[in-house]
Amino acid sequence: MASSSSLTLSQAILARSIPRHALSSSSSQDRVSLPSFSGLKSTSSSSSRSTTHRRRVAATTGLAVRASAAVETLEKTTDVALVEKSINTIRFLAIDAVEKANSGHPGLPMGCAPMGHILYDEVMKYNPKNPYWFNRDRFVLSAGHGCMLQYALLHLAGYDSVLEEDLKSFRQWGSRTPGHPENFETPGVEVTTGPLGQGIANGVGLALAEKHLAARFNKPDCEIVDHYTYVILGDGCQMEGISNEVCSLAGHWGLGKLIAFYDDNHISIDGDTAIAFTESVDTRFEGLGWHVIWVKNGNTGYDEIRAAIEEAKAVKDKPTLIKVTTTIGYGSPNKANSYSVHGSALGGKEVDATRKNLGWPYEPFHVPEDVKKHWSHLIPDGAALEAEWNAKFAEYEKKYKEEAAELKLIISGEFPAGWEKALPTYTPESPADATRNLSQQCLNALAKVLPGLLGGSADLASSNMTLLKMFGDFQKDTPEERNVRFGVREHGMGAICNGIGLHSPGLIPYCATFFVFTDYMRAAIRISALCEAGVIYVMTHDSIGLGEDGPTHQPIEHLASFRAMPNILMLRPADGNETAGAYKVAVLNRKRPSILALSRQKLPQLPGTSIDGVEKGGYIISDNSSGNKPDVILIGTGSELEIAAKAGDELRKEGKAVRVVSFVSWELFDDQSDDYKESVLPAAVTARVSIEAGSTFGWAKIVGTKGKAIGIDRFGASAPAGKIYKEFGITAEAVIAAAKQVC
Amino acid sequence: MASSSSLTLSQAILARSIPRHALSSSSSQDRVSLPSFSGLKSTSSSSSRSTTHRRRVAATTGLAVRASAAVETLEKTTDVALVEKSINTIRFLAIDAVEKANSGHPGLPMGCAPMGHILYDEVMKYNPKNPYWFNRDRFVLSAGHGCMLQYALLHLAGYDSVLEEDLKSFRQWGSRTPGHPENFETPGVEVTTGPLGQGIANGVGLALAEKHLAARFNKPDCEIVDHYTYVILGDGCQMEGISNEVCSLAGHWGLGKLIAFYDDNHISIDGDTAIAFTESVDTRFEGLGWHVIWVKNGNTGYDEIRAAIEEAKAVKDKPTLIKVTTTIGYGSPNKANSYSVHGSALGGKEVDATRKNLGWPYEPFHVPEDVKKHWSHLIPDGAALEAEWNAKFAEYEKKYKEEAAELKLIISGEFPAGWEKALPTYTPESPADATRNLSQQCLNALAKVLPGLLGGSADLASSNMTLLKMFGDFQKDTPEERNVRFGVREHGMGAICNGIGLHSPGLIPYCATFFVFTDYMRAAIRISALCEAGVIYVMTHDSIGLGEDGPTHQPIEHLASFRAMPNILMLRPADGNETAGAYKVAVLNRKRPSILALSRQKLPQLPGTSIDGVEKGGYIISDNSSGNKPDVILIGTGSELEIAAKAGDELRKEGKAVRVVSFVSWELFDDQSDDYKESVLPAAVTARVSIEAGSTFGWAKIVGTKGKAIGIDRFGASAPAGKIYKEFGITAEAVIAAAKQVC
Repeated sequence: MASSSSLTLSQAILARSIPRHALSSSSSQDRVSLPSFSGLKSTSSSSSRSTTHRRRVAATTGLAVRASAAVETLEKTTDVALVEKSINTIRFLAIDAVEKANSGHPGLPMGCAPMGHILYDEVMKYNPKNPYWFNRDRFVLSAGHGCMLQYALLHLAGYDSVLEEDLKSFRQWGSRTPGHPENFETPGVEVTTGPLGQGIANGVGLALAEKHLAARFNKPDCEIVDHYTYVILGDGCQMEGISNEVCSLAGHWGLGKLIAFYDDNHISIDGDTAIAFTESVDTRFEGLGWHVIWVKNGNTGYDEIRAAIEEAKAVKDKPTLIKVTTTIGYGSPNKANSYSVHGSALGGKEVDATRKNLGWPYEPFHVPEDVKKHWSHLIPDGAALEAEWNAKFAEYEKKYKEEAAELKLIISGEFPAGWEKALPTYTPESPADATRNLSQQCLNALAKVLPGLLGGSADLASSNMTLLKMFGDFQKDTPEERNVRFGVREHGMGAICNGIGLHSPGLIPYCATFFVFTDYMRAAIRISALCEAGVIYVMTHDSIGLGEDGPTHQPIEHLASFRAMPNILMLRPADGNETAGAYKVAVLNRKRPSILALSRQKLPQLPGTSIDGVEKGGYIISDNSSGNKPDVILIGTGSELEIAAKAGDELRKEGKAVRVVSFVSWELFDDQSDDYKESVLPAAVTARVSIEAGSTFGWAKIVGTKGKAIGIDRFGASAPAGKIYKEFGITAEAVIAAAKQVC
Repeated sequence: MASSSSLTLSQAILARSIPRHALSSSSSQDRVSLPSFSGLKSTSSSSSRSTTHRRRVAATTGLAVRASAAVETLEKTTDVALVEKSINTIRFLAIDAVEKANSGHPGLPMGCAPMGHILYDEVMKYNPKNPYWFNRDRFVLSAGHGCMLQYALLHLAGYDSVLEEDLKSFRQWGSRTPGHPENFETPGVEVTTGPLGQGIANGVGLALAEKHLAARFNKPDCEIVDHYTYVILGDGCQMEGISNEVCSLAGHWGLGKLIAFYDDNHISIDGDTAIAFTESVDTRFEGLGWHVIWVKNGNTGYDEIRAAIEEAKAVKDKPTLIKVTTTIGYGSPNKANSYSVHGSALGGKEVDATRKNLGWPYEPFHVPEDVKKHWSHLIPDGAALEAEWNAKFAEYEKKYKEEAAELKLIISGEFPAGWEKALPTYTPESPADATRNLSQQCLNALAKVLPGLLGGSADLASSNMTLLKMFGDFQKDTPEERNVRFGVREHGMGAICNGIGLHSPGLIPYCATFFVFTDYMRAAIRISALCEAGVIYVMTHDSIGLGEDGPTHQPIEHLASFRAMPNILMLRPADGNETAGAYKVAVLNRKRPSILALSRQKLPQLPGTSIDGVEKGGYIISDNSSGNKPDVILIGTGSELEIAAKAGDELRKEGKAVRVVSFVSWELFDDQSDDYKESVLPAAVTARVSIEAGSTFGWAKIVGTKGKAIGIDRFGASAPAGKIYKEFGITAEAVIAAAKQVC
């Protein structure tokens, strides 16, 4: 049983461990990491191991041990000099890489090297040879510009993704060490950070996922889900509104296993933080319901840092903020504690001075032998941790077959067979309904078959229609439930969902608000697309069709703005079948997020729509032409497909050969073969009219120079929806008139 | 002198007091409000007036009086019964309007009517007959869905913009009472709210503007700028990250004249705030450096509310949050204190029950005579306030001629004669430079001639190149300066600038970050466009040309996403002359915000570029064709115009007739005549190639079906800029090859 579960999990590992560059790099296949179980007893006792390598392993053996570990004093197995040498190694790897690239941010790694060392060497549970081991502790560098800190740590810990050659090609074309941490480039990096505040939000999502899965799958005799989430964030992250949003939620949810280090160095790009940031962060976080600890000497107070982590772990019902006061660029005699060390290379002269100041006689990129030797324990330790967990999982599987099967789906990202059959289908006789309501039918159908589906709305659940009726609310004391209440925090919601999605391949987060408020969360949505988190964005009230709330609430340019964004699917279904199709696409695209634009208003079930059609992005819903030569092609999306269909009917009565095309997703249509595209939009037919209650920007590509795009190129208005449609000319009459013009 | 200054100011009033609907409505001209000075002594003493109408007027007479007023006990000139009747009038106007529209949000107006009454009837200084009087107190309903509160108050106070017929056409096509407060529709509404958190941010901008202008223009003997900014925000606003951003800044800046009422009603759309919002708001605001007061009985504790306002005014170095605990839907026996009263009409039965419960025998929309009479003092009071201020200004002008002239420009929005001559010009021999640096030259040149120009960056001043060298930092103790340090708070920055821009027509706020981070502030930018705040967005690092920071920092879809947005100018200048042209356009467009996309990398000064050209949006920079029949048209923007020009030179060497077009702003080109457009892009010439280091989305409209758009339809990469350009094919070679294909 153990081997079979390992196999399943390894498949998940394989699926996720090929970074993007590996696909275009000849030498990278051999870097794909598989767990090395051989030579290690999977049942080795934790007590014997802990004498050599401390409580890292002890912490994995169950609740009883963890509870006592939380209050014990940390054993120091290495002497201070070696710790300091290791910390300086981290500093100089960062200095040297930035210097070689002549680009990057040395200041943070130099200041945060002590907490980095303690986390990766002493505290965190992970397996460097399998960065995707399910039960690993997660680490997020929210202050992503300091990525050389993380690359140096991954390198010392023995990750295959960051070899010496990778450090030397920092920030170069095709390297695994890009300018900010990117999970899709560098195994060992959990999420994509750099845009400030995103990382701490991802961290909240990772910690939420852990709390949820632990509550669902842990048993009194077997704690199969059990890890911490560590985050380092800086002053910049703290200033961003998104971090306040998510930290308010983390406090509300009582995410006790989220431990965030606030690198309190008083410097941001414009200089001393005193010029723009004089609030009391401690007081604010106390208000947010966090446990707050202040490490006054983050530069050399190693025991202070260790004690703070212990204290943080002992507080189980609140997340902890460890404010660590550090010196940015610590060790640089002339640039430390100034903005000049934040974002540029120190320069040869200052590098020399820093080497002298910190007593560092080594060549660039050199890792001293004793430091190397010291870090070498992490590979066998990591393998042992994973083997132990695999053995534990085998036991779990024996006792809790059903739960184990479900958890494996979440870990592997595999879909249960036939899941898509759960999606509802409709006929033209089915009652008219708003696509937001049809969306709720899909979500509730999918929740029954997809164990990883969870999500919610930014305080609009009853408008977005996103409640899963078979589940309760994910809350502090009911974390096993799947309806997440994000409050009015769109940006945080999106970034939390990115964290959930990147926690485990089988978690499928969805989140919802009014379509216009994607503006609040656009930065998080873009990172979904970039970091390949398959979040499903359920965006209702998708046009002037929402009516009276007026122009602040009516999206106009939003469809176009997402069609222009790489690696995202913008879907605008027209009725029940298309909504089901949109969900099928969204669920299957685990590395390409989907946005579903859904109507507030009722829409009829149209003849000719289908799930299959949606999968092609654009398809014919009705046609009375022959020989692929219609007189005119009418193209609609979402709520305007009905109008196109009506206009088509009218024109046919007048004897025209009319094709009506649903253009539900431009990106999916782009992915089709040229032959298919020609079969829908034949090049020879230039008489084309599109209708969409949104900006016409971009439609010229579809309707061509001789066609006509009907849309809205102004802001909306406050009035009943039907009135606005009429006043704005989004009508069948307008389509008919345009068709006659272009024919 | 007094009359001449009044005249100037009236021009400003006229320019701003014609709302958008007035332009299409025949009956609206007669509603344009002009101040009525006649019959009022402009020198009437404040002491005599204050005995009739309390400290409203006393508060305008200078520092000494204000200081003592702040600690005095408020006189109550009306008995409690009449106050209560007035408050119920507000409640029922809201109930009745929502009921008639069968759409809207009655809950907030019913709960906040007491604070609304006290503010508009007893506390605020304003002139209902001139909503644009410069020195008025500003009021912002950040919880904009409760707009019926504000409409009811404007109606009672005697604003011509909200007559009974307007209340009766709430949320209807063409009305002045749209579904959320919109400054461009309803005189008396200062800003546009609804999207949560924007209003409190606008409020911070309004208060910043007051503090700045007061510091610049007030004299020991004459406090010519002196008003408060009041905001009502709800739980939803509090949850949004943007509000934490701006409240952190308000605390940092010590905006003592900002007084925010937090409508603490424990209900949001999804139900009790306990499901998602359990932080201690009080503690957080204390951490942010605010003075916090709690009014426990916001429903009937009128004296508590009054005392809180007094206390808030007495605290001069901190903004104040007055947490007012209210009952949403107060008075409704079956729906109060529940989410059901938030966003829908009460329904006839419950309206009846509420009438009974609150003892309200009147017909819908009825304002009882005694209430009407009570509120009638505000029209003469307001006129007196303005007349007094005008007299004061006349005195000021006599003593401080230069300052008065400058302040008049700020109040009126007029430009100093010849201001645009300050803009630098360049020749092809001028040194190559990044457009971000050229932008700084423009900003510094303009700062010398435009008294209302102020702004800054979200902690990237030294990267965005936005510092005004002749000024220091706007800070708590140096508010007369013009460099604003926003910290890493892009969203808050944008919305604060909207507030600054809407404070006075002559204030020209600019703000800056990396172009990609417009994603963080997109909601605020959209509202700039909607509410006609002519903010200048200085967005540097505008493409893959930023290099090593990688895809999280490289905009791709951003140009397209703003070209699709209504009422905004997206400008991407190519060199010095075009940067100067972009600034000329941006400054002149006071009701249409501008985004300037600027390069990090050096660009040559190109032959053929000009300020005039930029004003046309698209124009020819070089051409060796004749008869408007080039073989091919090459089109570039920004940093790629250089590439188009190079490719043009090469093709000409091969004997081709090549036109090179700069397409710096699509919107401005769209505004040109058909003749002009034909002279640049003749319909007969279908051989067109565009090049832009961004998404090709939208370019099909420009290059046509037979042309070719060179761009980037994937995310960027981390590497030196030149390398990425080459790998992505953004090169002259690619343009030449494409040109040969399409010719």
